[in-house]
Amino acid sequence: MNDPGRGRTRCQVAVIGAGPAGMLLGHLLRQHGIDVVIVERRDRAYVEGRVRAGILEQGTVALMARLGLDRRLRREGLVHSGTKLSVDGAVFRIDFAALTGGATVTVYGQQEVMKDLFDAAETRGLDVVFDAEDLRLEAVDTDRPRVSYRRHGIDHVVDCDVVVGCDGFHGVSRAAIPEGVLKTFERVYAFGWLGILADVPPADHELIYCSHERGFALASMRSETRSRYYLQCAADERVEDWPDERFWDELCGRLGPEVAARVTRGPSFEKTVAPLRSFVAEPMRYGRLFLAGDAAHIVPPTGAKGMNLAVSDVTMLGEALIDLFEEGSTAGIDGYSARALARVWKAERFSWWFTGLMHRFPGTDPFARQMQVAELDYIRSSRAAQTTLAENYVGLPLSPGPSNREPQP
Amino acid sequence: MNDPGRGRTRCQVAVIGAGPAGMLLGHLLRQHGIDVVIVERRDRAYVEGRVRAGILEQGTVALMARLGLDRRLRREGLVHSGTKLSVDGAVFRIDFAALTGGATVTVYGQQEVMKDLFDAAETRGLDVVFDAEDLRLEAVDTDRPRVSYRRHGIDHVVDCDVVVGCDGFHGVSRAAIPEGVLKTFERVYAFGWLGILADVPPADHELIYCSHERGFALASMRSETRSRYYLQCAADERVEDWPDERFWDELCGRLGPEVAARVTRGPSFEKTVAPLRSFVAEPMRYGRLFLAGDAAHIVPPTGAKGMNLAVSDVTMLGEALIDLFEEGSTAGIDGYSARALARVWKAERFSWWFTGLMHRFPGTDPFARQMQVAELDYIRSSRAAQTTLAENYVGLPLSPGPSNREPQP
Repeated sequence: MNDPGRGRTRCQVAVIGAGPAGMLLGHLLRQHGIDVVIVERRDRAYVEGRVRAGILEQGTVALMARLGLDRRLRREGLVHSGTKLSVDGAVFRIDFAALTGGATVTVYGQQEVMKDLFDAAETRGLDVVFDAEDLRLEAVDTDRPRVSYRRHGIDHVVDCDVVVGCDGFHGVSRAAIPEGVLKTFERVYAFGWLGILADVPPADHELIYCSHERGFALASMRSETRSRYYLQCAADERVEDWPDERFWDELCGRLGPEVAARVTRGPSFEKTVAPLRSFVAEPMRYGRLFLAGDAAHIVPPTGAKGMNLAVSDVTMLGEALIDLFEEGSTAGIDGYSARALARVWKAERFSWWFTGLMHRFPGTDPFARQMQVAELDYIRSSRAAQTTLAENYVGLPLSPGPSNREPQP
Repeated sequence: MNDPGRGRTRCQVAVIGAGPAGMLLGHLLRQHGIDVVIVERRDRAYVEGRVRAGILEQGTVALMARLGLDRRLRREGLVHSGTKLSVDGAVFRIDFAALTGGATVTVYGQQEVMKDLFDAAETRGLDVVFDAEDLRLEAVDTDRPRVSYRRHGIDHVVDCDVVVGCDGFHGVSRAAIPEGVLKTFERVYAFGWLGILADVPPADHELIYCSHERGFALASMRSETRSRYYLQCAADERVEDWPDERFWDELCGRLGPEVAARVTRGPSFEKTVAPLRSFVAEPMRYGRLFLAGDAAHIVPPTGAKGMNLAVSDVTMLGEALIDLFEEGSTAGIDGYSARALARVWKAERFSWWFTGLMHRFPGTDPFARQMQVAELDYIRSSRAAQTTLAENYVGLPLSPGPSNREPQP
């Protein structure tokens, strides 16, 4: 149906954004023979190079498996059956597997996921248009929406049945929805995360989430030779003020002597400050435009829900679109927003709660810190409380859909 | 040892305050032959008439049983094996018994507990001095503390080994501790509870905790013919502004049509506004003065922890004092504060959390309400989350003591 001469293309689903949400949805639809074009503002190197999430819920791993894209993930990913919590230096463990009947998470960087998705797109003939400038969504409130863009100086238009916005918080998709349609909820936190990457072995084979009087810290990793560490910092912290030695000293102070003794210092090759935000826009649909992932909602990174939530969105939306194109049923797409939001709000709740539990909040009273310490003490002592953390961390089940079809294999 | 002529008395333990904490401790010590005097500022009718808590944790029931004072409680108390939560009118149940291996709570008003404790004090010869004016604690930082007071115009002094302050938040005991010794933590909530008592059958055979956009409500009871209802109100709400009809209308609005249909209206015979406060003073000891119950800590009433926390304090303190007087061991009293506080902080955490989950907080953003609704939705869907609520509600176990002796039968 493509006619590059006129710059006009026709497809069933136009996906805006080639991040994890857009690419996974593209592969899922493509697997079912649905004609899909993915349009991305940036180039592949940029998207693939972005340092983002690194913890995959089991539902995310399951989707990669369902797409036949889990070979490298199975080989290189680190399976974690638990995590550690540190309270002013005292460490205890949450045993995901024991608490949830065997569920685990997998450490596998978003960069690796993107590489697998892009490589497979080439071999499977999944259309991904990079460098699409002046992206515009048009007529999304009709049955014939269009996506237009300019590429290498040539204007293009994609006619389609459905547009899916997977272009993140700052993307054009949510912005294309007229004022007054969306209800938005937002919480901006008064602090950020200062993160580094360094090619040193991690302090522990599992993650350590650290609540300390001086602020939150997180000992994480990308592999057995690459560490990822974070420190809670001011929202407007300057990276320049954090030479490596200062970072390592502060990290070790928060982790406490027991863990600090196992921290291997080394030069960082990435150092960034990220803000923390909770955000939800609802509904996740406007006419023939559907939103998924960061385009519709943002979570603070505590608990690693961001990419996983995008994946559960597109898993549900994928099912709905397959129902639409294979069976002509609109029940799936009509129920998508409510179904996705039911899970989104639970993940928002978990991320907000875990953020509130672990961080130092400027301006709060000493009672607030006591509540954090008491809750951590309660979690340490209660199997039920540990289970709530574990079941959210490994990923809550997908919300039930309108059909009887199981949304996951 | 008493010498009323000189107004001078000697005992092993002087207890300040004849509320539930003081009276239970008195009976517990008396059961072990320890010489105890309870000194109370008010008269019996006042103390017995105070309308307060009505939900007994199983540990509280166990202590009454251990004292042989549970006959009427077993006969008249209503055993609740669950409670209900209502979210904007949609009700679901938390099954305590199923979630905690059979634990329950018992509805039995504090007034009934007090009557049983006072009646037994008379038959068992437990000394309770009412109407003690100008109560003073002296030399509590020595081995020979004294309690002085005036009664019917005559000055009295009680020499003792130990003083226990069970005289509540506004009592003299905590105030007797020099400035700088105690560390205090406090949270005052920007709302209160407007409560009524009415001789009408309760709307439900269990309690209904109601989260509603307009504010919290609680449908409770004292018996099968006496209802206790609460509405979240402004901290400075005037009872005069709430004629019964207005109360019933607002209550039914918050409970929603399903529950409202089962509300029996009738004239209230008690109507009060109570503030909500979280407060902890630590340590719970200064020299030979020990604090227990409200003298050391306050919880907001959501979750009914106040009296029960006083009971767990005096259960632990009773064990410690029995060790002291029977075996000469100070390990118990030396460990009392830390041991009691470990449980106090968990109950403070639960009460603060349950308050935060269920109330409307003036000045918060819409995201905050979404977090409440999402958490309630999560609780509805998760056995683990329900278990955390249930295990806290029926009462966490006593913290382990310094000895191997089991603190409860």
